[in-house]
Amino acid sequence: MTDLLTPSDLWADIAAVRERAPLVHSITNLVVINLNANVLLAAGASPVMAHAHEEVADMVGIAQSLVVNIGTLDPYWVESMEIALRAAAKRGIPSVLDPVGAGATPYRNQCIERLLDAAAPTVIRGNGSEIMSTAGAAIRTRGVDSSAGANDALDAARALAERTRGTICVSGVTDHVVDAHGRWSQLSNGHAWMTKITGIGCSATSLVGAFCAVQPDAWRATTSAMALLGVAGELSAERAAAAGQGVGSMQALLLDALQLLDEREFLRRVRLEAQRC
Amino acid sequence: MTDLLTPSDLWADIAAVRERAPLVHSITNLVVINLNANVLLAAGASPVMAHAHEEVADMVGIAQSLVVNIGTLDPYWVESMEIALRAAAKRGIPSVLDPVGAGATPYRNQCIERLLDAAAPTVIRGNGSEIMSTAGAAIRTRGVDSSAGANDALDAARALAERTRGTICVSGVTDHVVDAHGRWSQLSNGHAWMTKITGIGCSATSLVGAFCAVQPDAWRATTSAMALLGVAGELSAERAAAAGQGVGSMQALLLDALQLLDEREFLRRVRLEAQRC
Amino acid sequence: MTDLLTPSDLWADIAAVRERAPLVHSITNLVVINLNANVLLAAGASPVMAHAHEEVADMVGIAQSLVVNIGTLDPYWVESMEIALRAAAKRGIPSVLDPVGAGATPYRNQCIERLLDAAAPTVIRGNGSEIMSTAGAAIRTRGVDSSAGANDALDAARALAERTRGTICVSGVTDHVVDAHGRWSQLSNGHAWMTKITGIGCSATSLVGAFCAVQPDAWRATTSAMALLGVAGELSAERAAAAGQGVGSMQALLLDALQLLDEREFLRRVRLEAQRC
Repeated sequence: MTDLLTPSDLWADIAAVRERAPLVHSITNLVVINLNANVLLAAGASPVMAHAHEEVADMVGIAQSLVVNIGTLDPYWVESMEIALRAAAKRGIPSVLDPVGAGATPYRNQCIERLLDAAAPTVIRGNGSEIMSTAGAAIRTRGVDSSAGANDALDAARALAERTRGTICVSGVTDHVVDAHGRWSQLSNGHAWMTKITGIGCSATSLVGAFCAVQPDAWRATTSAMALLGVAGELSAERAAAAGQGVGSMQALLLDALQLLDEREFLRRVRLEAQRC
Repeated sequence: MTDLLTPSDLWADIAAVRERAPLVHSITNLVVINLNANVLLAAGASPVMAHAHEEVADMVGIAQSLVVNIGTLDPYWVESMEIALRAAAKRGIPSVLDPVGAGATPYRNQCIERLLDAAAPTVIRGNGSEIMSTAGAAIRTRGVDSSAGANDALDAARALAERTRGTICVSGVTDHVVDAHGRWSQLSNGHAWMTKITGIGCSATSLVGAFCAVQPDAWRATTSAMALLGVAGELSAERAAAAGQGVGSMQALLLDALQLLDEREFLRRVRLEAQRC
Repeated sequence: MTDLLTPSDLWADIAAVRERAPLVHSITNLVVINLNANVLLAAGASPVMAHAHEEVADMVGIAQSLVVNIGTLDPYWVESMEIALRAAAKRGIPSVLDPVGAGATPYRNQCIERLLDAAAPTVIRGNGSEIMSTAGAAIRTRGVDSSAGANDALDAARALAERTRGTICVSGVTDHVVDAHGRWSQLSNGHAWMTKITGIGCSATSLVGAFCAVQPDAWRATTSAMALLGVAGELSAERAAAAGQGVGSMQALLLDALQLLDEREFLRRVRLEAQRC
């Protein structure tokens, strides 16, 4: 597996984001919009949020990548996302879709179909049930939380990668990243408290956008982004718990870790497997 | 009063939220939407935010309770709230209304009337002037802050409870919870700094939604939710002040306390009175 | 310069905001709306956010100042801002405009023109490239970050002050505040980490709104607001760094500092120059 992807490759991508500070255009949801901007800044990227139909294509035109997140979708915002995905495809910049709550309502499913038809995203990231639902599997989502294990969703992820010819990330206790060329990475970092802060999954998606802007191999970029968040997440949760604190303090410490994590600590902690399947 | 409601009853509700993790659908304001999601998660509930007219009734259909908050209302969002309140009434799940800034503008008052006409909420929570204004009392609100004492608003709360046949909470230095059956609880926890963090009142409303999802007696559920927030609030303010910190640090510590507060500390601090009037 | 403006004058304004708790109506962007409310509260002001066309003029009618921020503009929100700016001008209350991302897209530039035509704001605050673009200078903005130095933008600021007959603030490593009467103040506080938290510039604008509500000399009020944020910013960054923490922890400490900063520490740190040019 070492020949496919090494921890040092991941760190090189983390360093590249910090050095090149890519501009990431995000059309994201109202719950996480502030956190996602702060996550991008802490990791060294530069966020811009814009959704007006009149400017969304122009903003894509100055960005290095696009992130689209349907968490609090409505018809106006879905059209913004559609325009932006088309503009990104036309310009050849990477795009990332987070199908938050896929399967929760018929409208949400229709909107995801519409976005996939507009332009296939370079990467799609979701939890198990979101990826299964996006892939067309019959599954009931319990709100925006996952009711399917990440492992169960691997087949769906591979089918979806076939359809988009792109990279699919299924996040969970273990994160899986597959692509249309049969590559498959697994990351076993993270902490249970990460599910107790709103928008950590959405933040992962934002980071994938930043990493795709500096690393043209989207499967590798996605793996690097998930590794950074997993390591920073477990580090911040451990630090909060050790101080008798909880998920509120952890949120601040997570941003600290995204900013200050060094190579030595990253390499010591990251648990990566990569293979062809 | 012990026969009506005891501190141990309140703790049982807190434990039930943690254990059952109810899905709370919130249509809330843009200022507090992130904090409210995090407050629900820290308390053990599961938040979902959705406002598109095309899906709002479907989302109510998978939730255990509904929270509606008019803080940053506009015509689109008011219609979302109306659809959701009707769907919740039809399904028989509890709904909570936070009439933020009631009395501040004529439009705000009209929207509140419209929501009350759509379907009477199970619980309404506001500060003194918001409850007085919602009850139809002639009062000038100073923005979204209260210019009437909680005590002055008790008569208005009782009149409003008569109209909705539900539970009304007037929050302030002392929180009052009354219902249409003449029950009245008072909580004397909290801290002045709680008014220095935006959205603490709205967070109280969110918690009421979570508690109503696990405790069918809405008056008791509302009292339990307010008690949890009051105790967590005073604990976090005291901890911040003791460390030479202020309201910024307190916000993180508040989430920590919602997550980690234990029965012993809760019972030691809670100051509850309950009676029939 | 001492006769124009002294550090003690600035502190007097900080104390006045804390004492008088002005109601500041903000129509701001979705990324920073929560932080800006918390910044206003920590500084002692009282925020209200409202954007519905049906109530925006009424809300201006009970506020002491208006803040308008175009960060996540769309047609509905731009019209809200236009109505509010006209209402503020009619009532004679101060208004502050933050032209976030000016120059990034043609639509953004058109909206700024439209807002300036609606009613000249009392104060405009932006980074160097935003002020240059707002003044009509030909400049390419890199998203919402500044690609022009604050110094380069001084000429543009003076031209813009001539047009609006108001006060213009160009923020950067050194903050500059100029007005149509040829007054010019400079502040050399702050910390590089302030650019690593989203919405710090927007928070500066919010504080300017609060200070204009209690200090009728808008040039002085703007200088006082920028001084408070600069001192609180460097203090919180130093404290975070000293504790081995980063920008996540710094955000909480910044709110703490806005709330708890005392006169002695402020006067010890503030680096003010004021002159006629």
